[in-house]
Amino acid sequence: MKIIRSGTLPSVRGPEAWFSGTVRIDAPFQATEPAAVGGATVTFEPGARTAWHTHPLGQTLIVTQGRGWLQEWGKEAQVLNQGDIAWIPPEVKHWHGASSQTAMTHIAIAESVNGSPVDWLEKVTDEQYQGR
Amino acid sequence: MKIIRSGTLPSVRGPEAWFSGTVRIDAPFQATEPAAVGGATVTFEPGARTAWHTHPLGQTLIVTQGRGWLQEWGKEAQVLNQGDIAWIPPEVKHWHGASSQTAMTHIAIAESVNGSPVDWLEKVTDEQYQGR
Repeated sequence: MKIIRSGTLPSVRGPEAWFSGTVRIDAPFQATEPAAVGGATVTFEPGARTAWHTHPLGQTLIVTQGRGWLQEWGKEAQVLNQGDIAWIPPEVKHWHGASSQTAMTHIAIAESVNGSPVDWLEKVTDEQYQGR
Repeated sequence: MKIIRSGTLPSVRGPEAWFSGTVRIDAPFQATEPAAVGGATVTFEPGARTAWHTHPLGQTLIVTQGRGWLQEWGKEAQVLNQGDIAWIPPEVKHWHGASSQTAMTHIAIAESVNGSPVDWLEKVTDEQYQGR
């Protein structure tokens, strides 16, 4: 068994290539093979969001704080509030992030295929974000 | 995409066959195939705990509140505090639950094999719990 103690892993800035705005990634966890599940707590400051992306085996989001948005490519954006749980199926192109006025924190959980849980695509433009 | 809205699923009592004491299961989530990850938020009142059990692909616990214990069969029990994240590898016999004085809430995450994420074994006796 392995226990990651609270406060022992530094917070990491969400990389600029994959996120817009100020994003903090905390407490990442990763199962070891043959298990494939991993994830982290992700905090989006107001207006911050992921780039468009897909997950080979989908993703679960558990919103632990605040209010944000989840949008599937070509569909209407859905609001996410604290306590909501979202399931994004495999290979569905989407983004998620904070609302423009309120930060959002979620636990993001995804299973890896060939060692990777995500395929990153283009950034969500300000026009796409404002038009959500 | 599917969003489970906060407050739309009733709390469920942890079944007596698999838990000792008062255990509440909230907000279960389950990915659809080919994904295999699922889980729930589980709250153990003081003294409450799971039975001994194993997971075919292991389990991740994210402690969101309180203080509890995690014990592997034949080893010393490990304390769990809010913010700690535990990884129990596949087929490792273990139990987890609250401390005797303080409740514990964790998000439990496990991948299923043949539709099941867990194999339940015997109860944790009072002697085992007190001797942890």
